[in-house]
Amino acid sequence: MAPVKVGIAGLGTVGSGTVNVLQSSAADIARRIGRPIEITHIGARRPNPHCDIGDIRVSADVMALADDPELDILIELIGGTTVARELVLRAIANGKHVVTANKAMIAEHGNEIFAAAAEHGVDVAFEASVAGGIPILKALSEGLAANRINWVAGIINGTGNFILTEMREKGRDFADVLKEAQELGYAEADPTFDVEGIDAAHKLTILASLAFGIPLQFDKVYTEGISKLTAEDIRAADHFGYVIKHLGIARQTSDGVELRVHPTLVPKEVLLANVNGVKNGVMVEGDAVGPTLFYGAGAGSLPTASAVVADVIELARTLAVPQADRVPYLGFQTNGLSDQRVRDIDEVECSFYVRLHVRDRTGVLADITRILSEQGISIEALHQQDVDGDSPVPIVLLTHTVRESAMRQALEQIGALGDVIGDIMRIRVDTLGA
Amino acid sequence: MAPVKVGIAGLGTVGSGTVNVLQSSAADIARRIGRPIEITHIGARRPNPHCDIGDIRVSADVMALADDPELDILIELIGGTTVARELVLRAIANGKHVVTANKAMIAEHGNEIFAAAAEHGVDVAFEASVAGGIPILKALSEGLAANRINWVAGIINGTGNFILTEMREKGRDFADVLKEAQELGYAEADPTFDVEGIDAAHKLTILASLAFGIPLQFDKVYTEGISKLTAEDIRAADHFGYVIKHLGIARQTSDGVELRVHPTLVPKEVLLANVNGVKNGVMVEGDAVGPTLFYGAGAGSLPTASAVVADVIELARTLAVPQADRVPYLGFQTNGLSDQRVRDIDEVECSFYVRLHVRDRTGVLADITRILSEQGISIEALHQQDVDGDSPVPIVLLTHTVRESAMRQALEQIGALGDVIGDIMRIRVDTLGA
Repeated sequence: MAPVKVGIAGLGTVGSGTVNVLQSSAADIARRIGRPIEITHIGARRPNPHCDIGDIRVSADVMALADDPELDILIELIGGTTVARELVLRAIANGKHVVTANKAMIAEHGNEIFAAAAEHGVDVAFEASVAGGIPILKALSEGLAANRINWVAGIINGTGNFILTEMREKGRDFADVLKEAQELGYAEADPTFDVEGIDAAHKLTILASLAFGIPLQFDKVYTEGISKLTAEDIRAADHFGYVIKHLGIARQTSDGVELRVHPTLVPKEVLLANVNGVKNGVMVEGDAVGPTLFYGAGAGSLPTASAVVADVIELARTLAVPQADRVPYLGFQTNGLSDQRVRDIDEVECSFYVRLHVRDRTGVLADITRILSEQGISIEALHQQDVDGDSPVPIVLLTHTVRESAMRQALEQIGALGDVIGDIMRIRVDTLGA
Repeated sequence: MAPVKVGIAGLGTVGSGTVNVLQSSAADIARRIGRPIEITHIGARRPNPHCDIGDIRVSADVMALADDPELDILIELIGGTTVARELVLRAIANGKHVVTANKAMIAEHGNEIFAAAAEHGVDVAFEASVAGGIPILKALSEGLAANRINWVAGIINGTGNFILTEMREKGRDFADVLKEAQELGYAEADPTFDVEGIDAAHKLTILASLAFGIPLQFDKVYTEGISKLTAEDIRAADHFGYVIKHLGIARQTSDGVELRVHPTLVPKEVLLANVNGVKNGVMVEGDAVGPTLFYGAGAGSLPTASAVVADVIELARTLAVPQADRVPYLGFQTNGLSDQRVRDIDEVECSFYVRLHVRDRTGVLADITRILSEQGISIEALHQQDVDGDSPVPIVLLTHTVRESAMRQALEQIGALGDVIGDIMRIRVDTLGA
């Protein structure tokens, strides 16, 4: 049969990996779909020494790909949300299927892109946009489709997980490990996207839409980074039997969904707590299947290309299938999406870890526990460390389940006590069903 | 749109779970596929108190389902390999798509069933046949389709994993835990299928075919059970930094594939070593994605129904799609299957754990190490336990990588030494890429 013709826009890390996988797996791919895939056109400003594109046609202007009548599928790997969005919308308007690894574009412009794709009867596939090589989007929209998903909780940023793993295993400080991560190429020169949770929020937006059948709502994700965590917090969490992970959590409640990214204390015995280094892991709890975990590489040239090429294989096999017979963009039919509300962070209920430093004065602990008690917050465990002389005394405690707003008010009052020194750290706790 | 009509053959544990999930998730399923699914006909000898089938038509003769012209999809959940095979072939001949949870039938008769299905242009879906609710077959045939799979290694029998977990965590003996597993309903009265690895071999057969694109070859799986493992072995493995798991392993080598089920020492720090209790976990290593893990419930009414209903949803959505545009039965086009050979167990190369008891006589250890050395087997670690008086001395050792045949010959010679008492235990070691 005639080859399926694809164009690749962007020849960076993921683009070169995609070229490499399409070339090295060409024979196996043909065994799978019964016809070859041919890279017909590449859009890139400059060559990439990590892949040999032979005599494939190259355009410096990526928009040329959207207009190339030869192409069946456009693979968007340029990243960003402006040119990428324009390119994808133009390819769709020209009747091409699209594969993308672009989490920011899908999270922020996915609703618009899917509407355009539906209008033109083409598919948009984006498995590579979340958790790299782990086929978690397919699991949510197909493998676990029989379930009502109760919650999804994922380590979905490898850089952040590398930093937290190093801090825990070696007792190192955040800034110190971040510097190493930058030297190793795991973290960008401006690490904000990774360590402040924006990248994870993009991915969580996508996971939540597929899990619950809701439109993409990136602007409603509550986001908190890991840059304020200290080696002391990680040790104290360990003492209580927990590991601190930077999680994206999407939870279905009877009163709307929760969408949040923040550091989280997770019990040591939960498998997700043992996902270390740059690896990603996503737990999904469904009402029929119970808890599941999907683990693997969350980034990198070849792992991300693995997901890109899996999407290409599926589209290449089903070029002739009408859009109505395909898996819908977000797993649910567009008219079947739910308009349930997203909860404000103040409404969330969970346990908390709290760490603060106080002057060693009789009565300060009584003041703290009184304030907590007045807000209806009960203490599960408390540890006050012995110190020498006049040094500030560290207090760490775990609460029982409490509403976020009550916790916030209690900590404001505690912070106003004269004997509390410096900032109070509070981290949410999630037992993840354990 | 008109409902998709399904018939369910078998109303046991999985059958009742399937009815329950189809009923409880009916609204969400319609949101996904744009039309409802209707259970039109059930084949069962007697009612099941765990599900309310209302006024759904029931036939005591399941064959009536294969001949029911109303049905679009037949769901085979009666188990076994005789009536089930006949039922499925008849439904296929009548142009119905089939969903099944029947690992034995697929592993032993899948090649014949797929040939019949291809002839009649219908699909056969069997996600539920391996690892219950974990969508591992979809991951292999679709999510990881861009990869050349290097190996798959799975804990794919929950009963066996429950027994090994209890033995490890509580120092209990095999027979003692088996009895408890039987009382809890995790193990059958005749536990052979579970503890001797036959159930796992059925599942491994299926995993290997999807991983490597080879025909189903159940008769070529090397199978070894867990009934001879002792608490002493589990302690000794722990001492060396390993956990003993009953794994199904399929490995691609340059000289054919390996298909084997046996107890395996796995390094503690590997995530799979921490999959405990009745849970299942499957690791897949692909050339692009690297190592991945899929974890969840491997059995049970609702988890298995989760996989059955996911398959039903996919078929219901794609009723109008020609078979040629679907994912092929084994992930590869029938004419793209590989005829590579399956290695004999004697050809496998790995490290070994060996445990034996000897009389406390000078020179016996020298005899043992000499025999190992003559077979080209080098020792990585050895531990000889101190004992009182004339008791037999336990020796445990780990070898470096060695060919199975050399290990077998060495152990035959060691076993013939006059000072070796009782049976020698040898267990394969797999670092699973760590």
